[in-house]
Amino acid sequence: MTDAPNLALAQKVLAAQPFSNLLGARLVAFTEGEATLELDIRDDLRQQNGFLHGGVLAYAADNTLTFAAGTVIDAKLLTAGFTIDYLRPADGALLRAHAQVVRAGRSRVVCCRCDLSVVDSAGVETLCTVAQGTIAVPEPSQGT
Amino acid sequence: MTDAPNLALAQKVLAAQPFSNLLGARLVAFTEGEATLELDIRDDLRQQNGFLHGGVLAYAADNTLTFAAGTVIDAKLLTAGFTIDYLRPADGALLRAHAQVVRAGRSRVVCCRCDLSVVDSAGVETLCTVAQGTIAVPEPSQGT
Amino acid sequence: MTDAPNLALAQKVLAAQPFSNLLGARLVAFTEGEATLELDIRDDLRQQNGFLHGGVLAYAADNTLTFAAGTVIDAKLLTAGFTIDYLRPADGALLRAHAQVVRAGRSRVVCCRCDLSVVDSAGVETLCTVAQGTIAVPEPSQGT
Amino acid sequence: MTDAPNLALAQKVLAAQPFSNLLGARLVAFTEGEATLELDIRDDLRQQNGFLHGGVLAYAADNTLTFAAGTVIDAKLLTAGFTIDYLRPADGALLRAHAQVVRAGRSRVVCCRCDLSVVDSAGVETLCTVAQGTIAVPEPSQGT
Repeated sequence: MTDAPNLALAQKVLAAQPFSNLLGARLVAFTEGEATLELDIRDDLRQQNGFLHGGVLAYAADNTLTFAAGTVIDAKLLTAGFTIDYLRPADGALLRAHAQVVRAGRSRVVCCRCDLSVVDSAGVETLCTVAQGTIAVPEPSQGT
Repeated sequence: MTDAPNLALAQKVLAAQPFSNLLGARLVAFTEGEATLELDIRDDLRQQNGFLHGGVLAYAADNTLTFAAGTVIDAKLLTAGFTIDYLRPADGALLRAHAQVVRAGRSRVVCCRCDLSVVDSAGVETLCTVAQGTIAVPEPSQGT
Repeated sequence: MTDAPNLALAQKVLAAQPFSNLLGARLVAFTEGEATLELDIRDDLRQQNGFLHGGVLAYAADNTLTFAAGTVIDAKLLTAGFTIDYLRPADGALLRAHAQVVRAGRSRVVCCRCDLSVVDSAGVETLCTVAQGTIAVPEPSQGT
Repeated sequence: MTDAPNLALAQKVLAAQPFSNLLGARLVAFTEGEATLELDIRDDLRQQNGFLHGGVLAYAADNTLTFAAGTVIDAKLLTAGFTIDYLRPADGALLRAHAQVVRAGRSRVVCCRCDLSVVDSAGVETLCTVAQGTIAVPEPSQGT
């Protein structure tokens, strides 16, 4: 919409999120219409059965959906909401969340989808969760 | 379905979730069809604008929906998925998530709704997020 | 937001929807923050097993959520999206969908919830489906 | 899971749905993991502003998601629920809904995504709505 997506700038936004730091999230891709976030599956991110807690998956969906929207909208963004479906228990070395813009919709809203996979120590990736969400541009007077 | 909901037992399940400990979540109510979870809004749970991170709200929705289902189903449960709508930026001293069973649905699934509010230091509660989700009973052969 | 909700006016809007006429929908309540829509469960609204088709329930959720938002926002509205959870197969004489505004959220969006029940010939009402959705106010310059 | 997807058989199921007949829906593809449903955008399927009614889109999402699940699960299926995001007003000659299985998840549930497009008289296709849903296999004792 304005400049090309800037990974370094987006990483600064992520670094300014204390909760993302607490979870150890890293933004590893930020290109036109797509963003990828990763985090190591540490033991303090698990639930009672040893799997990655659904709340970590939901965090990753929320944040990656919003960063994906940020690749096409150069403005302050607010996640309006999202739906998440857990497909299987998540375990492995790494969580990788990849979101793509479906399109900028009506009502100043961007719709995105996100695939969340776990990657084991051998690099094998397994899809474990999918999400779909909408991100709003809250200030219509900013000349977008 | 079998015994009355047991708060102390449910609190043990929560205590066995490392991620819930990391976030400081407390289960404060667990009665027939309802569960309430709270956590203090610490600075390391915020996003870049100083509000509570959406991922914390999503964690609380996920977990409270599942505990609410656990008040009526005495079996291992898996959150199948949920939808979350953020109504306003969340700030305050405390996050309170309250979920209620809508009803045990077809296909061994329990549907619940969750209201998430922030409570300020004066005790004023403001609804900031709503969620709706389904929780599945994964093992049909357990005689439930 | 401006005038009190006007049932007769809202019924005119419904009457101007050819698809609502095809399904025989009636708007029976339209008060501050709430709307109720009903339709007779005719045989041509069923699926292959004799139950009300999920698409009819989804239609009723979509429309009732939007009318509920219309009770608090006096402007053109667009349903941004919704989530629907089917709790049990729906059968009976009448479908009744009742939606309530949760609150007008950030980003010019109204969030509503909807309970869909079937009513049998004896008047007994059974909840069969729940929905949660967001309705957007698309034109920010209209002086709302 | 058993036999290859059978388009003719699936079309018989669709033909046995009175509501699908009322709307004029046609199942045009039914292959491993994918289903496509189409319907002509008749005037009686519109809302008050002349666009296709959201309820028709929701019907098409519901049904196509379930048929897509039916390409991989040879059993009675129930749509557990879905989320739909409307991206733009829908108008044109034809509605085409295409759903794909994401994967068969935990708890005997299949998760699918659906893209809904309108096609104009020149054959130009425009994405207008996206959905994500879960379909349950209700009878665990059938030896699947």
